[in-house]
Amino acid sequence: MFEELLTRLREKKPLVHHITNMVTVNDCANVTLAIGALPVMAHAPEEVEEMAKAAQALVLNIGTLTREQVDAMILAGKAANSLGIPVILDPVGAGATGLRSHSAGRILDEVKISVVKGNSAEIGILAGRGGKIRGVESAEAAANMAEAALELAVKYGAVAAVSGATDIITDGKRIAFVDNGHPMMGTITGTGCMLSSVVASFCGVEQDSFKAAVAAFVCFGLAGELAASCPEVKGPASFKTAFFDEIYNLTEEKLRLGEKLRIE
Amino acid sequence: MFEELLTRLREKKPLVHHITNMVTVNDCANVTLAIGALPVMAHAPEEVEEMAKAAQALVLNIGTLTREQVDAMILAGKAANSLGIPVILDPVGAGATGLRSHSAGRILDEVKISVVKGNSAEIGILAGRGGKIRGVESAEAAANMAEAALELAVKYGAVAAVSGATDIITDGKRIAFVDNGHPMMGTITGTGCMLSSVVASFCGVEQDSFKAAVAAFVCFGLAGELAASCPEVKGPASFKTAFFDEIYNLTEEKLRLGEKLRIE
Amino acid sequence: MFEELLTRLREKKPLVHHITNMVTVNDCANVTLAIGALPVMAHAPEEVEEMAKAAQALVLNIGTLTREQVDAMILAGKAANSLGIPVILDPVGAGATGLRSHSAGRILDEVKISVVKGNSAEIGILAGRGGKIRGVESAEAAANMAEAALELAVKYGAVAAVSGATDIITDGKRIAFVDNGHPMMGTITGTGCMLSSVVASFCGVEQDSFKAAVAAFVCFGLAGELAASCPEVKGPASFKTAFFDEIYNLTEEKLRLGEKLRIE
Repeated sequence: MFEELLTRLREKKPLVHHITNMVTVNDCANVTLAIGALPVMAHAPEEVEEMAKAAQALVLNIGTLTREQVDAMILAGKAANSLGIPVILDPVGAGATGLRSHSAGRILDEVKISVVKGNSAEIGILAGRGGKIRGVESAEAAANMAEAALELAVKYGAVAAVSGATDIITDGKRIAFVDNGHPMMGTITGTGCMLSSVVASFCGVEQDSFKAAVAAFVCFGLAGELAASCPEVKGPASFKTAFFDEIYNLTEEKLRLGEKLRIE
Repeated sequence: MFEELLTRLREKKPLVHHITNMVTVNDCANVTLAIGALPVMAHAPEEVEEMAKAAQALVLNIGTLTREQVDAMILAGKAANSLGIPVILDPVGAGATGLRSHSAGRILDEVKISVVKGNSAEIGILAGRGGKIRGVESAEAAANMAEAALELAVKYGAVAAVSGATDIITDGKRIAFVDNGHPMMGTITGTGCMLSSVVASFCGVEQDSFKAAVAAFVCFGLAGELAASCPEVKGPASFKTAFFDEIYNLTEEKLRLGEKLRIE
Repeated sequence: MFEELLTRLREKKPLVHHITNMVTVNDCANVTLAIGALPVMAHAPEEVEEMAKAAQALVLNIGTLTREQVDAMILAGKAANSLGIPVILDPVGAGATGLRSHSAGRILDEVKISVVKGNSAEIGILAGRGGKIRGVESAEAAANMAEAALELAVKYGAVAAVSGATDIITDGKRIAFVDNGHPMMGTITGTGCMLSSVVASFCGVEQDSFKAAVAAFVCFGLAGELAASCPEVKGPASFKTAFFDEIYNLTEEKLRLGEKLRIE
């Protein structure tokens, strides 16, 4: 359904500005390149507004946040807002510490977010529906994740996107369920962060953030499936190599054949 | 001898909080996942105590330290101490600069450390027995490393663990020599840091830190040997891929067959 | 022509101190090891002078700069200058924001630089010849890059080195054109940063910075070519693995056969 967005992405090569964590920053840059966009990472308060304004999308990821970094995120987010550049929030570990919950809330309050993408615990907690998180991994989801995502989407006028065995993406009106993906994706760190970079890459070429996010989830999950079936994959590290390669090698045809998507 | 600890680790999936360097942080997260534990990285002073208290082990690694980061380490370390959560110190580059030597000493003085893990120069220098370091690599060891490790262990009531061709692990009473490992492990950056993450993962499920550290060294070294013998390994990067995969694929049986351990 | 430098590098194993960005810092460390040198990363103001003075070369890379980090770079740079230790500047993203342009200029003014290495936009912009940059990637080069590089070299008494399809290296008198390299190198993040680490590794064993830089560019480009022809390469990630392996496996003979170099 959203295959042509991939072609558009690769033609336009949107610049995706990241303010992100130090754990997976390299993977985020490489996945942005692999899907066909152009990454740039910059977090100094003196330059984030200028960089955000030059970009086609902005990722705010609080994986290893500090108070200063969140301040820079808000500067960048407001600069992006001023030009209508989409902002993607990855509230890594919201619920794990007060700082993370508070910072995610503060960003949602002060910046107009296009897509908030998290795991089921993060989204449930931000929606006020509960959930439990261990470190940055979901340990327990809210009872009804689709409802939690819908509420969050409506509250902030954003697309809420939940990664999981079945991904849920909603803008409050439409809701998509994506069954692409593979358990091997959970054996490496950073798949969540990388997915946010891919969402941002699609948002950089498609104004309908719901459509962009769905395309990103399908691409990302399908590449994970294709990688898991590669004969050279023997564990998480060889899977990771195959996964990046499959993202790079995605085609509209592979998407058409492999997409596991239901929209309501 | 310690095979069942691996099974316990994978069942309990301990959360390992890291305050670590920016060079190898991604590898530390991935190795923690590969051995079967759950990593989280957080260094903001506002959240380190809360995160440390939610974890089953804490890693303090000074590889790219700043004064502020060491302050956060001490906050986190004291919080972990207050709940009896084991703290693992990796004094990367102690002896290379005054800041590193001073900071390692300061952490050892202010935080109750369960395991201090370093290369021969770092441990020799911290034990006051000399040694020479180039950057973060041991250039010259103390004359008698076993004695140096014993002294350090007794002085701080900690397990002292020295990585090298033959690893030495001691709690001041028992001493273990581990001959597992492979020279290819020295061709990539971060094996030392990664080993500390694995030590912490085992400490998260085993109160006897000596036993935990020995299990970690055996697992880590054996995985290195197994990786080095993979036909697809052609250099450091393909070795690294195979190494992570072998850590993930370790079994009790492989350990029983491959363990090269002597305890006195 | 410069084959024997590789052997010298591997014998002397120079220590290369990096103050660099958080995106590619792991790759920089690993490439430094792969070419045969020894990396160390340290950026705290309290230790950068001591670390720089212990090293044989210093890399200053502004990829994720902050004002504080640039201050530390200048401290380290002056310390290196005081002992005649070569300093390599990678002005990542100069021209993309005021902070980056200003900081690159500030470092060039306050520190004696041996080699400034950038893409065509960065070098063109620093030379005052124009160019256009998107994030950290060159979008448009100056009309005559060789002239721009010559001017920059003369202005700062440094070697100016421009990476591109044909690399240009000049000290203001000699000029080298290197045709080694492969488009796959552009599919992963950090090849520019990694190249700076390799330049620094060679500078650590060769006083003639022009000669050192040329050797580095040839080695790096040739390894890229060799990697791209590996049958296991299926995309950017498997290319990256092969690339590191090929750098590690470079020999004088491969260089003699594969070098595509013209000096005027």
